[in-house]
Amino acid sequence: MPEQTAHEDHRAAAPSDRVRIRRKPDRGRYDRATVHAILDAGLVAHIGYVVDGQPYVIPTFYWRDGDRVYWHGSTASRMIRVIESGAPVCLTVSILDSLILARSGFNHSADYRSVVVVGIALPVTGDEKARALDRFVDVLAPGRSATVRPMTEKELKQTAVVALSLDEASAKVRDAGLGDDPGDETWPVWAGTIPVHLAFGEPVPAPDMPAGIDLPENVRALTRR
Amino acid sequence: MPEQTAHEDHRAAAPSDRVRIRRKPDRGRYDRATVHAILDAGLVAHIGYVVDGQPYVIPTFYWRDGDRVYWHGSTASRMIRVIESGAPVCLTVSILDSLILARSGFNHSADYRSVVVVGIALPVTGDEKARALDRFVDVLAPGRSATVRPMTEKELKQTAVVALSLDEASAKVRDAGLGDDPGDETWPVWAGTIPVHLAFGEPVPAPDMPAGIDLPENVRALTRR
Repeated sequence: MPEQTAHEDHRAAAPSDRVRIRRKPDRGRYDRATVHAILDAGLVAHIGYVVDGQPYVIPTFYWRDGDRVYWHGSTASRMIRVIESGAPVCLTVSILDSLILARSGFNHSADYRSVVVVGIALPVTGDEKARALDRFVDVLAPGRSATVRPMTEKELKQTAVVALSLDEASAKVRDAGLGDDPGDETWPVWAGTIPVHLAFGEPVPAPDMPAGIDLPENVRALTRR
Repeated sequence: MPEQTAHEDHRAAAPSDRVRIRRKPDRGRYDRATVHAILDAGLVAHIGYVVDGQPYVIPTFYWRDGDRVYWHGSTASRMIRVIESGAPVCLTVSILDSLILARSGFNHSADYRSVVVVGIALPVTGDEKARALDRFVDVLAPGRSATVRPMTEKELKQTAVVALSLDEASAKVRDAGLGDDPGDETWPVWAGTIPVHLAFGEPVPAPDMPAGIDLPENVRALTRR
């Protein structure tokens, strides 16, 4: 089956055993383009870290720059302190694309895209930290960082930024839609898929906005993500 | 300030130090009603578990029944095997309600609701497992489990269900909207909030649906969640 071989060759191999997709390995994607695209489409990551053997999972914004993912937090945050001590971390981003209501409970499923990154996150400091925080604002609305009130020294001191390399990253994608067992099609129940997406409503301006400041195009664009 | 005291008294205390909200403790909610409401509003949880000191975070559907949260997986899944070995776990559900674009980068934020549950999850077996899986389908669309093709013995054997008590659960809620520093209001940049929610599209019926099966009200209702 030369076509299938070509397809397999096209796919990158798992960068490590730790992020190899074990369940449903056909859903695994290891090429950088797929990992980048999913990270760029997401907004909130869930960060896993361990304290005294107990895992904790905390939601937070993140952003990608090249082959690293970044997130920030208060320097007083336990999550940040644990990570800055060099403890291993896991960053997971998941995007739900549809609910799948099959004829059997067993075949109920979802189409989704997810990325898991493991490793040791490194503190981002000095000028690089300020640039990273500007990039965070600009990822939300391109060019916005140059238009907001500049960061103060105190704010910069209170904020920690960490970066995690994508060296150990894998993606998992299901886009197969409905997958009933042969023979189940005639079961007399509605079956199908329900598309799901994160929707952005109409922006609500600050009540105390000075006159003459209209919704800029970069914020409007954010609502069309 | 009697009013504030009354408000404080109204709030439940953290059930354990492990789930006490450390950062922004004013956002912590420990009463069961708030925890239940957030869990019932969410759809996907992120499960944290540890293998060889490395945390892993995996997205999965979950459902609540009383004072426990449930999720399922293949009996061959590593996540399930680790959990069934009695390893500590963390289940986190987060719901993003709005993006907050402030006049300063520092005050960019989000309104959100989240729940963190830690503990040891227990395997759900026998008749209780079958009932739990029916409930999962019914939480999506009430009454649906009785209408789908019944589960086979083989499917039941391939599926593991675990349950985690809400004994150690906490919620964190931010619903404060825009929070600029005094004096920043006059900065000449658009500021405001952008509502965000998970939106359900028009259901897409299976192409091979037998004639006469229309979209039922319980599936239509799901799209209005």
